Amino acid sequence: MMILQILDYVGTMAFAVSGALKGVRKELDIFGVVVLAVVTAIGGGTIRDTLLDLPVFWLADSTYVLLSLAMAIGVFVLFRLAQKTERSVLLFDALGLGVFTAIGAMKAGAAGLGVVGMVTMALLTGVGGGVLRDVLAGDVPVVLREEIYASASIAGGLIFALAAHVGLPEAVGVTVAVIITVAIRVVSIYMGWRLPSRPARKEDN
Amino acid sequence: MMILQILDYVGTMAFAVSGALKGVRKELDIFGVVVLAVVTAIGGGTIRDTLLDLPVFWLADSTYVLLSLAMAIGVFVLFRLAQKTERSVLLFDALGLGVFTAIGAMKAGAAGLGVVGMVTMALLTGVGGGVLRDVLAGDVPVVLREEIYASASIAGGLIFALAAHVGLPEAVGVTVAVIITVAIRVVSIYMGWRLPSRPARKEDN
Amino acid sequence: MMILQILDYVGTMAFAVSGALKGVRKELDIFGVVVLAVVTAIGGGTIRDTLLDLPVFWLADSTYVLLSLAMAIGVFVLFRLAQKTERSVLLFDALGLGVFTAIGAMKAGAAGLGVVGMVTMALLTGVGGGVLRDVLAGDVPVVLREEIYASASIAGGLIFALAAHVGLPEAVGVTVAVIITVAIRVVSIYMGWRLPSRPARKEDN
Repeated sequence: MMILQILDYVGTMAFAVSGALKGVRKELDIFGVVVLAVVTAIGGGTIRDTLLDLPVFWLADSTYVLLSLAMAIGVFVLFRLAQKTERSVLLFDALGLGVFTAIGAMKAGAAGLGVVGMVTMALLTGVGGGVLRDVLAGDVPVVLREEIYASASIAGGLIFALAAHVGLPEAVGVTVAVIITVAIRVVSIYMGWRLPSRPARKEDN
Repeated sequence: MMILQILDYVGTMAFAVSGALKGVRKELDIFGVVVLAVVTAIGGGTIRDTLLDLPVFWLADSTYVLLSLAMAIGVFVLFRLAQKTERSVLLFDALGLGVFTAIGAMKAGAAGLGVVGMVTMALLTGVGGGVLRDVLAGDVPVVLREEIYASASIAGGLIFALAAHVGLPEAVGVTVAVIITVAIRVVSIYMGWRLPSRPARKEDN
Repeated sequence: MMILQILDYVGTMAFAVSGALKGVRKELDIFGVVVLAVVTAIGGGTIRDTLLDLPVFWLADSTYVLLSLAMAIGVFVLFRLAQKTERSVLLFDALGLGVFTAIGAMKAGAAGLGVVGMVTMALLTGVGGGVLRDVLAGDVPVVLREEIYASASIAGGLIFALAAHVGLPEAVGVTVAVIITVAIRVVSIYMGWRLPSRPARKEDN
């Protein structure tokens, strides 16, 4: 699955860009921008590997850290240009979400976990880095607040679990999970979909 | 110790409710409410198992995640009703604190740790989920600020360590730890006890 | 390397003091001050050991937790005095940063990791505790924002990796890493050095 490896690197770069953009906006110094980019890119997979008691993926392959580092420096130096590309970064970010989701579900399946394990590991891999990014930057994580983002990841995890349950080959499950996750995410961006929330303050008075 | 298992589930549900209530108050969408509930309910035990290098407990038994999920949806749908029950939820929450504390100390003891290990694992299991809940919601963790909450957990951990030291059976240690923790917590709620803090700002001028 | 063990305890105490001072300033109760002190002192090494899948260092040697506890209570009781010593605490803190950095790089090297692994583990050990301290206290981590702090740790990690690469004995690598990290940190304090950041808001309009 060399294609999965390449997509994984592309997703890593997209996540690093989103972390670096946030860092520059928060007026962090170059080091802070680099850290936020790296944490966003590898944070989710790190949480997953820690919980599954697997070797942490980026300790075995430095490419993830180095790619994130390169994207962070690029964003810092070319900030105006990077901002203009943010709309297209959203598409790569959706691709990253799909790939990270599928890899998380796959690793959970390989560890012998059931549906709940596959879905939670898909979700933690997909959104964990973004949550760490927002917490470090002092914001409430964006995935908790508004967008169809985590929901897309959960759907992808469920699809993978379903594919595994009916005995489809792993490559099919991964492919379908990536496609479903990316499709839900991209369509939700263009349609402006949101999940319901409750206007607690008004109602409570 | 089937009774301990049942109490563990009850505590999990109480913690999930406290997370879900916070999520609705912060006007999170349904997904954010679910995540906050699940993190509050299983966060402390997850930190404990990771540090002790044990298999993460909810990966082996999906009941914890599913119970938390159900409570979150219930709170979201029946928010007004859930709010009215918050006072009684406080009592279940105290029970959860006691059970989580005792389980943390017990797992640390089984791993061969001494007093410091038992107390810290009791504390991390008891309050870890609530700390993650507050950090994700953008608040300073409530256990750091005001109530006799963590102190009750520390007392429970110390009692368990003492019971283990004098050679009492584990079931006795667990029982006493639960009772002490719950008693301190419940009494402190009704008496309005607080630990001392220093009014730093005034004093510093 | 008994001297390294002693320096490690000294660094632990300095980090605990920085956590406790922050806790008192945030008007936390005595328990919150203790937790912030302990987390600051042992947080970085805990993250490192978890990612390297090593036994968590303070579970094997309770001295770290007990020293942190003692410093927290001391700062709480003698807050005015502790504040006056903060300038000298900065020097001990720099020593702690150097020692933690060197130990992180050394443990990564012993685990067979390459340059990226050694530098990231040096950094996580050196700054991880301070990041947790600031996140729990509701602040954006200071190392992301302003000072030559993490940069000193990265430099120390790189020096250790270089020393290991050219085959110098581990004790030499550790010594040089400590000296370089402390020197950069101390000089930057006295010279008021800062890394570049981008004034994002003005430029974006």
